[in-house]
Amino acid sequence: MRRKPSGPMTYCVGLLLDTGIVFASDSRTNAGMDNFSSFRKMHVWTGSGDRVLVLLSAGNLALTQSVIALLNEAIVNTRDDTPTLETATSMVQVARTVGGASRKARSIETEGQSSGTGYTASFILGGQIKGEPPRLFQIYREGNFIEITGDTPYVQIGELKYGKPILDRLVDPAMALEDAAKLVLLSFDSTMRSNLSVGMPLDVLLYRADSFSGESVRLAADDAYFHELSRAWSSGLRSAFDLIPPFPR
Amino acid sequence: MRRKPSGPMTYCVGLLLDTGIVFASDSRTNAGMDNFSSFRKMHVWTGSGDRVLVLLSAGNLALTQSVIALLNEAIVNTRDDTPTLETATSMVQVARTVGGASRKARSIETEGQSSGTGYTASFILGGQIKGEPPRLFQIYREGNFIEITGDTPYVQIGELKYGKPILDRLVDPAMALEDAAKLVLLSFDSTMRSNLSVGMPLDVLLYRADSFSGESVRLAADDAYFHELSRAWSSGLRSAFDLIPPFPR
Repeated sequence: MRRKPSGPMTYCVGLLLDTGIVFASDSRTNAGMDNFSSFRKMHVWTGSGDRVLVLLSAGNLALTQSVIALLNEAIVNTRDDTPTLETATSMVQVARTVGGASRKARSIETEGQSSGTGYTASFILGGQIKGEPPRLFQIYREGNFIEITGDTPYVQIGELKYGKPILDRLVDPAMALEDAAKLVLLSFDSTMRSNLSVGMPLDVLLYRADSFSGESVRLAADDAYFHELSRAWSSGLRSAFDLIPPFPR
Repeated sequence: MRRKPSGPMTYCVGLLLDTGIVFASDSRTNAGMDNFSSFRKMHVWTGSGDRVLVLLSAGNLALTQSVIALLNEAIVNTRDDTPTLETATSMVQVARTVGGASRKARSIETEGQSSGTGYTASFILGGQIKGEPPRLFQIYREGNFIEITGDTPYVQIGELKYGKPILDRLVDPAMALEDAAKLVLLSFDSTMRSNLSVGMPLDVLLYRADSFSGESVRLAADDAYFHELSRAWSSGLRSAFDLIPPFPR
């Protein structure tokens, strides 16, 4: 028999633009194909008007929830000079804090167990702290991270391949936030058509640079805009396909 | 550090239509990112007008070449009643023969080695033997196989995810062969944009049902039709994108 890996059950995207950042995440979580639930994978922290931090998570749900809990506990129980999400003075400090919480959570949760295999989480972190431009990071399961810059202005975690071609073709840092959100939703549409374990509802957040405010919007399964986008895209692809001459040989 | 699996270096597709089968394969092979070569992954056998058999291969090149060699040797050295590619009376017998050769090649090539991990090959097999309609199979690395039928009339091996959404959207068994070939090439276009290790030239074969003849066509890197298809598709996607209203919130 062929062994099929279970594969990722999540899709999250962050897209860094000249005018801000678009974030989106699905909310499908499962413990087997007959046991689906919906959990928010987008977490937002807003300070006292000096920061907006957005964290998207993929991987083991117990582990990602544990990371969020550690980050929130650190804010309340801050004792030393270790930066928290509220006191960090740069996005790099925040990325380091999240990476550290991820490593700590993993070591707590796997303590006394022979194997931590498969028990991993990865994150997209983005946002802005006053004094810096908006910044976007990918945090790997080992807790290390990279900053998203330049030629490839987006980052994906989870089930990334189905939704990557459309991003590669159309992404442009000069896009308006609302157009970039449209592109990100098309990327989700392609992903959800090809992998049933990525599903609605979606959480979307448009962060406008220097606004220091941001609120996520939830798109339910029956969202009218998403349905119309999906329908228009299918019909547009069909027209584009029909315009190309058939293979001549 | 994050561990990145090297991933598949191949993309092959077979698409079963009411009027025949379209096959396509890339030809990129590598032994490291600085050592690329081009090898044909499409192999065609035509009997004396009673069969056309097409085999597309993904995986370890030494192993797939060994499978082809075993299949060809069996045709020449046929001693008992074991079916060969020339004597098999059904496509299922051919699939079984290829699966058997694949198992045999793997056991020969890994003999005396402690681990056969990563040393695998998988295949798409399609074609027609007189008395049967055209049939299409996927042969797994273990040598077992499934027949492609019904709702999902295509099969992919190798780097399959980038090129799957476009197939899922537009595939239709009632398509003309020339339109299906266009669709398959669009699927390659998406794959090659997102994974540089899948590359031109491409081999394409349009098998028309009951023709019992078929010749592969090679599309070189500068193929005029492919370039125009790629350009027209990009521009068509851009138009389709522009027609959708921006995200309203």
